[in-house]
Amino acid sequence: MINLIIADAELELIPAKIAGHPSVRATSSRRRRRAEECLLDSSLHHSAMNALLDAGRRGRPDIVHFCLLLAMDSPVNTEEDGLRVFVHTRNDIVLRFHPAIRLPRNYGRFTGLMEELLSIGEIVSPAGQQLASSARQTLGELVHELGSQAIAFSEEGKPDYSLSFLRQYTDMTLIIGGFPHGAFLSDVSKYAVSTVSIAKGKLMAWTVVATVLAAYRLTRLWQI
Amino acid sequence: MINLIIADAELELIPAKIAGHPSVRATSSRRRRRAEECLLDSSLHHSAMNALLDAGRRGRPDIVHFCLLLAMDSPVNTEEDGLRVFVHTRNDIVLRFHPAIRLPRNYGRFTGLMEELLSIGEIVSPAGQQLASSARQTLGELVHELGSQAIAFSEEGKPDYSLSFLRQYTDMTLIIGGFPHGAFLSDVSKYAVSTVSIAKGKLMAWTVVATVLAAYRLTRLWQI
Repeated sequence: MINLIIADAELELIPAKIAGHPSVRATSSRRRRRAEECLLDSSLHHSAMNALLDAGRRGRPDIVHFCLLLAMDSPVNTEEDGLRVFVHTRNDIVLRFHPAIRLPRNYGRFTGLMEELLSIGEIVSPAGQQLASSARQTLGELVHELGSQAIAFSEEGKPDYSLSFLRQYTDMTLIIGGFPHGAFLSDVSKYAVSTVSIAKGKLMAWTVVATVLAAYRLTRLWQI
Repeated sequence: MINLIIADAELELIPAKIAGHPSVRATSSRRRRRAEECLLDSSLHHSAMNALLDAGRRGRPDIVHFCLLLAMDSPVNTEEDGLRVFVHTRNDIVLRFHPAIRLPRNYGRFTGLMEELLSIGEIVSPAGQQLASSARQTLGELVHELGSQAIAFSEEGKPDYSLSFLRQYTDMTLIIGGFPHGAFLSDVSKYAVSTVSIAKGKLMAWTVVATVLAAYRLTRLWQI
């Protein structure tokens, strides 16, 4: 079983501090929600975000969206039921997803779903089944709860381009940063048995998700 | 060298036939372009599309967007310069991309770029370098021009879950359908030496792109 954590993800509701900015008010009015119940999105709120710490990396729901679509679509999830997916945000909120949840391909609908999940704390199907939930939890607490050996990915990690760690463990927790650049905010070295780099240069989070899941499946199909 | 073709992609400008529909006029007015210079998008023009053939699969620039981001971000492209990427559309337009083009992560900006590319025929950098081009060409003509053995991917193809074809060729042309479901519109069996299925169930186009590029790289790193 693989536990995949998109960690320190730049997914958050709009901070109250910038709720009065014109670009934020425009989002709030278009989505018919209070600003503090709308997602921060750097492509919409760029100028408003100048007032925030770490403005250059925040407001990236698109990274989480793409990573989740790739993970949920992977045969490791759909055929083998071998994947559990978590999103841990910069505000220490952990989102959990039912393996059978069908996430919206459309970005606008995805942001609506995330706003509901972060504001209400869960998404329930019409039949009453919980499809996703959110609750306060640090990355360390989540890794501890999951129990398996954790591997983190970072361009600063130990080079392992051939992903040899996949042959060491059957169960593992993979920690992939859900931010566009820079380092983990959480102290990943405390929770992970190793931090690896899987390419010479920087990779986007979604490329890491896709590469590791494809390689995990092939490791076993190729029986090496 | 891998030539990656996103084929029969559901990427097109809005057909004149539905230019007068309210949802299309809204797009045209918001984007300040004539309707026929805006991209068809099923998430915006769903009801207008009822008047079109194949309405259930058309208008999916999001598929092309994700596939291109994954392909361009892949170390096969960025580190090895081992990838050329093409998009062939349902209207037999072929888009070509310079390996170093930086595509917008933001969907709205990506659609703007595609509108420019399809309307004007090229995208040129401020320094005068051509970053992308579009021209009329069928899939068969493109595969013939590229010259290498072509492999197509389809859930109806011959099962090859371990992607053994990657060990048969050094240079190859990979044909991945850029549509949400159904079959290729082009007669792929004429151009491809084989059509393979890489998983039991259906996969989204982007999962195929990510899986094949990751496996191609690992095949050589693992030297098998």
